[in-house]
Amino acid sequence: MDLLLTYDVDTTTPEGARRLRRVAKLCEGYGLRVQKSVFEIVADEKNTLQLLARIDAIIDTNLDSIRLYRLPHNGLADVQTRGTARPQPHRDDLVI
Amino acid sequence: MDLLLTYDVDTTTPEGARRLRRVAKLCEGYGLRVQKSVFEIVADEKNTLQLLARIDAIIDTNLDSIRLYRLPHNGLADVQTRGTARPQPHRDDLVI
Repeated sequence: MDLLLTYDVDTTTPEGARRLRRVAKLCEGYGLRVQKSVFEIVADEKNTLQLLARIDAIIDTNLDSIRLYRLPHNGLADVQTRGTARPQPHRDDLVI
Repeated sequence: MDLLLTYDVDTTTPEGARRLRRVAKLCEGYGLRVQKSVFEIVADEKNTLQLLARIDAIIDTNLDSIRLYRLPHNGLADVQTRGTARPQPHRDDLVI
């Protein structure tokens, strides 16, 4: 399924910047970083739960905000963009 | 329909910080700011086109990135959250 994960963290502190780097590195294992703190993810239920568990181990729950939205089927391809943003391919290797 | 708008802008420049403030003020007319640069929006096609036209007039298309995702019906209520994030009510006044 197509997911969108957004992460709000205070990057003016070294600790916050470090957490963002760690969450970004983690999310890049499941999808693509499309903005500084926005990640497009394609994952099944099992991988989604695994991802959330790993995020729980990184973030400061008193300071950081994580939001994970489920998009419609192929919703990541359906994004409207402005400025430097571009739709990102996620399923190029899935030619059936 | 439920929409999610994400905005990536360099806020280390006064101009970028100003554009973010302007986009935030604009989006708050259509929905809720749930993270620093993430906005939950409920709008029909007409209002969505109007919003995008107004955003075009604010952003620097060479520097800024806007992504607008369409969520499933009631997708905003379906968000999974971690840390300080909370689901936000958008339709409390629509008791049928």
